Amino acid sequence: MLAVMKEAPEPGLALKEAPEPEPGFGEVLVKINYASVCGTDSLIYNWSPWAAGRMKPPVIVGHEFAGEIVENGPGTSGMRPGTRVSAESHLFCGRCLQCRTGKPEICRQLKILGVDRDGVFAQYAAIPEKNLWVNHSDIPDQIATLQEPLGNAVDTLLAEDVTGKRILITGAGPIGLMCAALARACGAARVIVSDPNEYRLSLAEAMGADIVLNPKVTPLRGPVLTATAGDGVDVLLEVSGSKGALLDSLPLVTPGGRVSLLGIFRGEAPIALTETVIFRKLRIYGITGRGIFSTWQTLSRLLSSKRLDISKLVTHEFPLEDFRKGFELMESGRCGKVLFRTNG
Amino acid sequence: MLAVMKEAPEPGLALKEAPEPEPGFGEVLVKINYASVCGTDSLIYNWSPWAAGRMKPPVIVGHEFAGEIVENGPGTSGMRPGTRVSAESHLFCGRCLQCRTGKPEICRQLKILGVDRDGVFAQYAAIPEKNLWVNHSDIPDQIATLQEPLGNAVDTLLAEDVTGKRILITGAGPIGLMCAALARACGAARVIVSDPNEYRLSLAEAMGADIVLNPKVTPLRGPVLTATAGDGVDVLLEVSGSKGALLDSLPLVTPGGRVSLLGIFRGEAPIALTETVIFRKLRIYGITGRGIFSTWQTLSRLLSSKRLDISKLVTHEFPLEDFRKGFELMESGRCGKVLFRTNG
Amino acid sequence: MLAVMKEAPEPGLALKEAPEPEPGFGEVLVKINYASVCGTDSLIYNWSPWAAGRMKPPVIVGHEFAGEIVENGPGTSGMRPGTRVSAESHLFCGRCLQCRTGKPEICRQLKILGVDRDGVFAQYAAIPEKNLWVNHSDIPDQIATLQEPLGNAVDTLLAEDVTGKRILITGAGPIGLMCAALARACGAARVIVSDPNEYRLSLAEAMGADIVLNPKVTPLRGPVLTATAGDGVDVLLEVSGSKGALLDSLPLVTPGGRVSLLGIFRGEAPIALTETVIFRKLRIYGITGRGIFSTWQTLSRLLSSKRLDISKLVTHEFPLEDFRKGFELMESGRCGKVLFRTNG
Amino acid sequence: MLAVMKEAPEPGLALKEAPEPEPGFGEVLVKINYASVCGTDSLIYNWSPWAAGRMKPPVIVGHEFAGEIVENGPGTSGMRPGTRVSAESHLFCGRCLQCRTGKPEICRQLKILGVDRDGVFAQYAAIPEKNLWVNHSDIPDQIATLQEPLGNAVDTLLAEDVTGKRILITGAGPIGLMCAALARACGAARVIVSDPNEYRLSLAEAMGADIVLNPKVTPLRGPVLTATAGDGVDVLLEVSGSKGALLDSLPLVTPGGRVSLLGIFRGEAPIALTETVIFRKLRIYGITGRGIFSTWQTLSRLLSSKRLDISKLVTHEFPLEDFRKGFELMESGRCGKVLFRTNG
Repeated sequence: MLAVMKEAPEPGLALKEAPEPEPGFGEVLVKINYASVCGTDSLIYNWSPWAAGRMKPPVIVGHEFAGEIVENGPGTSGMRPGTRVSAESHLFCGRCLQCRTGKPEICRQLKILGVDRDGVFAQYAAIPEKNLWVNHSDIPDQIATLQEPLGNAVDTLLAEDVTGKRILITGAGPIGLMCAALARACGAARVIVSDPNEYRLSLAEAMGADIVLNPKVTPLRGPVLTATAGDGVDVLLEVSGSKGALLDSLPLVTPGGRVSLLGIFRGEAPIALTETVIFRKLRIYGITGRGIFSTWQTLSRLLSSKRLDISKLVTHEFPLEDFRKGFELMESGRCGKVLFRTNG
Repeated sequence: MLAVMKEAPEPGLALKEAPEPEPGFGEVLVKINYASVCGTDSLIYNWSPWAAGRMKPPVIVGHEFAGEIVENGPGTSGMRPGTRVSAESHLFCGRCLQCRTGKPEICRQLKILGVDRDGVFAQYAAIPEKNLWVNHSDIPDQIATLQEPLGNAVDTLLAEDVTGKRILITGAGPIGLMCAALARACGAARVIVSDPNEYRLSLAEAMGADIVLNPKVTPLRGPVLTATAGDGVDVLLEVSGSKGALLDSLPLVTPGGRVSLLGIFRGEAPIALTETVIFRKLRIYGITGRGIFSTWQTLSRLLSSKRLDISKLVTHEFPLEDFRKGFELMESGRCGKVLFRTNG
Repeated sequence: MLAVMKEAPEPGLALKEAPEPEPGFGEVLVKINYASVCGTDSLIYNWSPWAAGRMKPPVIVGHEFAGEIVENGPGTSGMRPGTRVSAESHLFCGRCLQCRTGKPEICRQLKILGVDRDGVFAQYAAIPEKNLWVNHSDIPDQIATLQEPLGNAVDTLLAEDVTGKRILITGAGPIGLMCAALARACGAARVIVSDPNEYRLSLAEAMGADIVLNPKVTPLRGPVLTATAGDGVDVLLEVSGSKGALLDSLPLVTPGGRVSLLGIFRGEAPIALTETVIFRKLRIYGITGRGIFSTWQTLSRLLSSKRLDISKLVTHEFPLEDFRKGFELMESGRCGKVLFRTNG
Repeated sequence: MLAVMKEAPEPGLALKEAPEPEPGFGEVLVKINYASVCGTDSLIYNWSPWAAGRMKPPVIVGHEFAGEIVENGPGTSGMRPGTRVSAESHLFCGRCLQCRTGKPEICRQLKILGVDRDGVFAQYAAIPEKNLWVNHSDIPDQIATLQEPLGNAVDTLLAEDVTGKRILITGAGPIGLMCAALARACGAARVIVSDPNEYRLSLAEAMGADIVLNPKVTPLRGPVLTATAGDGVDVLLEVSGSKGALLDSLPLVTPGGRVSLLGIFRGEAPIALTETVIFRKLRIYGITGRGIFSTWQTLSRLLSSKRLDISKLVTHEFPLEDFRKGFELMESGRCGKVLFRTNG
């Protein structure tokens, strides 16, 4: 089969012929129909310090997909071949303190598909059955592959209820855009998105943002306070990983408000805790992974009922052979989600 | 001024000339522009046992309104005359255990506007300033008067988050209809409304219900299980006060689901607690009044941002002189909310 | 090996020689050191309608135990033989809506150890590895066997925080007594226990109840209101299954208070919902099973740190051969928890 | 009357004769029996930048007290003279977004007793009636004066439930010591306190800490991980205001754990958000003030029921005339809480 691999501990990825995987114990062989590119895949492509410190090539990359069951390995329950599935990419141990108290997404022995074991930028993949999610018949594969990152957005946005809340989202990458669409679907009263990339701000408008702001053009403070009657926002979702965005935005959260942090910061952020967090009684949630499978349940219902429409987020689609074009687009920032067609 | 009064401890109400009220200590004189009729007003009109046990005529009735400040009484902060306001109708003591722990809506010395003191089916009313809510400029008076009952719907629906949830609402009176519209605005995945009144079911569809069911025509069980893939609903909102509706619906809540009870039942409901509540680990919330002013905050934001549109709920409007027509309509069940124009 | 079995669909249990079980796929063979008797076991002994409707004899009964690993079956992780373990008695499917959203205790295909498959009133038992809980070295087997029912008490008490709360526990059976001890350990300000059995009331005092009440001697209302400055209790834990206890106690919960229902009621309870639940804004939690493994985590920490001492709850201990004495004691009500020594 | 005043915008305080205050509108005149010294009072004494930026001398300082009602001002409800009271020191407007949504402790127009208006280091003080808390008859004045800061500890500790949790408290000042005692009373499984001051560590042991650590002697990491079986703590309470303490402790919180921040940091804290907060999914709560009056309710119940005993925290007591000795002790760090007897 064809597969996109990290062959050696260095930048780049290669399209290769690889043997079709054999499903191991408790695993299911899945034919991949669509896969999608995550920021993590770009880190792997570029062989970032994080990737270099964690991966052991050769590894087939990719962890977001929609496909169908081809074959059940030993120790599985016998799901019907042809069943349409996606999968939770976080492989949890089930035995650590975190797993045993309902938080497998922060398992202490977490392995990630396409990072710590072969992934889904390939025609087939072997996936542990307990990680599979059966896709709803009303969600096409091109959208179903987005469920995994959409789960991150669900946890980021819904760390607390947002009904009637005013929300600032710093960062209009795919997760930020999903957060904007979700916020609208969940009754947020005002959705403000900031990003220095005008292409992405226009996507944010298409996803339902009420106000989009380019901090390179205008400081956030003025328009955010104007849009919130001087109160500041109730909710800040930091999904950019920009320290400047965080430091500029924290003072714009109203006293008693809430912050979700999903964006990955490099190095330390110098936070004026007393003035911004303590005296203003903020609550801050670090977000990583997705509730397993609570987020899948929520987003599957939102997508299949058409309450949430993220189809405009898919801006590009390539055959797997052209994977390099997808990574170049990701680099350029002129895209929403990029999909790979993996089987014709 | 003109006022609709309960004159004597017996059925009926009368339109009378009454002296314009003097705002007492901490009170503000408000000119009423619109008032709306609540089921409680019908109980008073009909001199129900509840009304007979509580009210001490003569009393001007009515507690839902939108108006504007005319004059500030002594001990007030001096709000600008002309300021558009509505009011929380529950007058709380501020001293009991409940008031001191954030639950003034269940104050142990609760007084209600238009029940325990003169209300708002009149051209003017004196209202304690601490109960006033300044209306948003984007919410017209005909909608602003609905904020008070909408607050009940907010607490009924949002006792827990509803994003992606399947919801059954038993009862399509005004609160049930508001719950349906709110549920849609808050991302509920499926909204089912049941009521024996076909007029109200058509209003439910207009308010956004996905499925409407007449239990006199079809038992709920079949269509509810079909609509929920056999799981049952995640959320039951009982707003009819019908014991039959409750007993039929409890078994349709999925294990681990949630129930809000707002409808007023007469007598005791024989509940099979073990089978429906305990072994299925349901959570049941008794709902009365509204969070003060958390619900006002939420609904004002939803209305002013147009996330929530309940304008179709207002089916009739009369001058105060024709108040009897409004009560007759309420009795007939062929209406949504009925408004009174109180000043021209 | 020796085992206590339900041999036929009729009242009674028998001590029999049975073959030592073979651990199946994913299972571990456990040598049982101590087992304890649950009210459910009494229902099985007496062949109650519930038992008759569910069980398919022959079945080895019992589901509370402490023991040690003897042998790992195929498809297990290889825990060290000799490891001291107890087990969650609820066998969940992992695939239904409830399992996939963090509520395996109400799995739609739930099987129970000692009810739906062979249990632990025996010298050995085969237990699914994923249900095992490794016992803390500071918790002896005689206490470790109580962890399973203690988990029910944890969920019953801690459905909401109890710090500083006044609590009424109706029913001083083992779960009620555990709730009393837990409530003290968790900072409840006042713990009132009611039961018609004086023996159990004296146990309640030993477990830390501040006030014990016999409703056959004195109606609860007077002393409960006196003990709560007229406010009523913040929390009601109904663990008796007595409809009278529930109906007498609901009006004693302060407006805005909380109720947990764990006791199993026969038939329907006629509840005055409007007066007791709705107008007083109560929250009611149906409780069944235990959070898996969140409750185990909490109680293991409380027991091993000596914050919680339930040793006085163990009033009797018998060799398995004398199992009948244990069931007779349970019937008499003159006991706390009854233990069986299963291996010497 | 005698009063301790900030006379001019410079370091120091002075004992002066001052006129007995007249209770204004809605105010009550209170005879102060005991007052206690807070860290804020030391900041005022030393004329810290915070004090210099906020206070407008002359002002009578002090905000923690226990006393009794002497006289009711106009617009009050007529509480019985002699009633024993303390008071919430935060004077809230009741009109801002925060006040109207249940968070008066972060009122946008917050005034503080003894900072923004005359306080309680005096023989009499005029206090707004709505801020009064009637003291329980089982709580003597020397303890009742501690309720105000104890409320901060309640919110710090109980931002989430602590039953069975392992807790690290960085800082053994009065609030940290209260947190330690509270944590024990609320069923925390392990309470670890760190502070560089050995005197305070011995107080921490007296208040119930299981383990006390001096970070100047031993880095926290080793003993904290040992005491938590390698998991790290579930809860970190940062009450020292030391950036070093925070940065050293954040990595010791187990993934999925919780942090409360009450200590006041100077300047910015360089936090490695990605590694400590985001990838480990921590929740961080900024804490300021106290829930009004939810915390008072909780702590009054805990104190009056003897669940919580903080009497050992009171290490020194002086007549008001010797106030300087109290401030010197605070400076030295060799004290718990310091009390002033204000009337004989």
